[in-house]
Amino acid sequence: MKTYNVAILGATGAVGQEMIKILMERNFPIKELHLLASARSAGKKMWVNEKEYTVEETTENSFDGIDIVLGAAENDIAKKYLPIAVEKGAVVVDNSSAYRLDDNVPLVIPEVNPNDVKKHKGIIANPNCATIIALVALQPLHAYAHAKRMVVSTYQAVSGAGVGGIRELQQQVEAIHDNKPVEVKNFQYQIAYNLIPQIGGFNEEGYSSEEMKMQFEGRKIQSNPELSVNCTCVRVPVFRSHSESIMVEFEKPIDVEKAKVLLKDAAGVKLVDDPVNKVYPMPLDTTDQDLVYVGRIRKDMSGHENALSFWCCGDQVRKGAATNAVQIAELVIQNM
Amino acid sequence: MKTYNVAILGATGAVGQEMIKILMERNFPIKELHLLASARSAGKKMWVNEKEYTVEETTENSFDGIDIVLGAAENDIAKKYLPIAVEKGAVVVDNSSAYRLDDNVPLVIPEVNPNDVKKHKGIIANPNCATIIALVALQPLHAYAHAKRMVVSTYQAVSGAGVGGIRELQQQVEAIHDNKPVEVKNFQYQIAYNLIPQIGGFNEEGYSSEEMKMQFEGRKIQSNPELSVNCTCVRVPVFRSHSESIMVEFEKPIDVEKAKVLLKDAAGVKLVDDPVNKVYPMPLDTTDQDLVYVGRIRKDMSGHENALSFWCCGDQVRKGAATNAVQIAELVIQNM
Repeated sequence: MKTYNVAILGATGAVGQEMIKILMERNFPIKELHLLASARSAGKKMWVNEKEYTVEETTENSFDGIDIVLGAAENDIAKKYLPIAVEKGAVVVDNSSAYRLDDNVPLVIPEVNPNDVKKHKGIIANPNCATIIALVALQPLHAYAHAKRMVVSTYQAVSGAGVGGIRELQQQVEAIHDNKPVEVKNFQYQIAYNLIPQIGGFNEEGYSSEEMKMQFEGRKIQSNPELSVNCTCVRVPVFRSHSESIMVEFEKPIDVEKAKVLLKDAAGVKLVDDPVNKVYPMPLDTTDQDLVYVGRIRKDMSGHENALSFWCCGDQVRKGAATNAVQIAELVIQNM
Repeated sequence: MKTYNVAILGATGAVGQEMIKILMERNFPIKELHLLASARSAGKKMWVNEKEYTVEETTENSFDGIDIVLGAAENDIAKKYLPIAVEKGAVVVDNSSAYRLDDNVPLVIPEVNPNDVKKHKGIIANPNCATIIALVALQPLHAYAHAKRMVVSTYQAVSGAGVGGIRELQQQVEAIHDNKPVEVKNFQYQIAYNLIPQIGGFNEEGYSSEEMKMQFEGRKIQSNPELSVNCTCVRVPVFRSHSESIMVEFEKPIDVEKAKVLLKDAAGVKLVDDPVNKVYPMPLDTTDQDLVYVGRIRKDMSGHENALSFWCCGDQVRKGAATNAVQIAELVIQNM
């Protein structure tokens, strides 16, 4: 079996850590594993599959001899190092948003557009977490009835802000419990027992960058330039699964029963839909696994003939980021 | 000044307690105040404005000589006692859902349809909390451009399940912190760090009773039988303010600037909309006051010409229940 030299860029963050875990879980054929991070983390020891690794400082030379880079760093780090990695012959799967809308970079969800991987020129982008979760759920319905318009409200976990986001929710809950002042660092305001309707910055029309990703990335991933998305993104005090309330208007007729049949057999999806018996997706249940749970499927009652509503939840760190990236890397080596 | 004998039915619950507080805050002209509850609570002492009251067991005789009843009990208690109260000459403002869709019972939000109070035949119903918050926010826009279709996703606080709901979230957070088992009583599942997409039971089409209230009550309150609402109701780990993400399609054109001008001067609303400067409604900020905060107002980008999206938050126990009921009672005595 062929094996590959793999580097994780941003190996000490929440997504980088999860990428390592998932590479091991899925037995990715690794020859050498390199854990790259900032100078601050360099020298840290980490155990992966009972083997000790030392975190290396990222430099231009970090990518010599590397076959696959999984990028889990911020946009500025991605922009600085990934072109160097490509120049040195690596194929990069990048989780930042730096290259997602670049015409030369495929943006891939393996359950939706796996063949786009083949078009890469060195970099393949991993979509936004909320976009991945929505589009995995939507894909079987879209393939059948063609999605035209989506109205989406998200309920996004604090893990979206990384390890710091998770720690912040814990610390705030403890501070409130102990009657101490609440510290705010990663979010705009207290997130414990609160909701914050801001993820990212705002454009002139009043939409946040996170809200626009659903439309811009959705169009590219589905090769569906007409797709229009009205999205409201909200941070909620949940640790690591994103949930989404989605109304979709389709071009062709589709009923609830057909939607259930399609979702039941769809890749990456678990149909969890028997509300009378209290069976529906919840973020606690989707934590630490890779499927997007879909339920509460019902016909739109508000006047559009071919519209359905549903509710879906998925682990933001896994399928929303690390797992999707590793799945892309698996497609890459199939074609190497 | 004329004063009135007032009885609170269900005085020991979260809404009943808040009704007492708000009657005092707003200097409602009370002659005698009677606190009615179940036999279990009878005999309890309660201090209201430095005066001690004894909770009375509700019986058929509880309503003798009462002018105004504020109902904060469950549907079965409302159905049992409120007709008796009316027979004995009282006017009832009822917060249960027992009479809301009864043709003989006005369903009133004072900022929306105050004149409907005059049509009462003894009972006036207080709408569902999520419906009140949405329709107060919508009213100035609806009066200008006429709402036709709403797609709503709610983020509803645990206070919607009463004092027990609030206590349950606190106890679950503490149990998790102390590594003890989480107890579930008032909700279907753990609500701490989770979301539950169920409020009420489900109909055959898969909509929950809470989701249908927005359409059925909305049509009646707005006298807008054509209003169609696609609603998804979700319980979130927030203590006492409900939040809602709302897309509305209007009959007539309305732009964002016009909407802001209308909302700025509207009764019951506070415009909180400067996202670039991190100014938007959040449930923590709307707790313990009566205004519905509205912000994140923007043009729908998903294809409908006359559609806007917005985000609103309101205190579920106050404007969503107790304050609205006391406001109705104030309209009632104006007409007495």
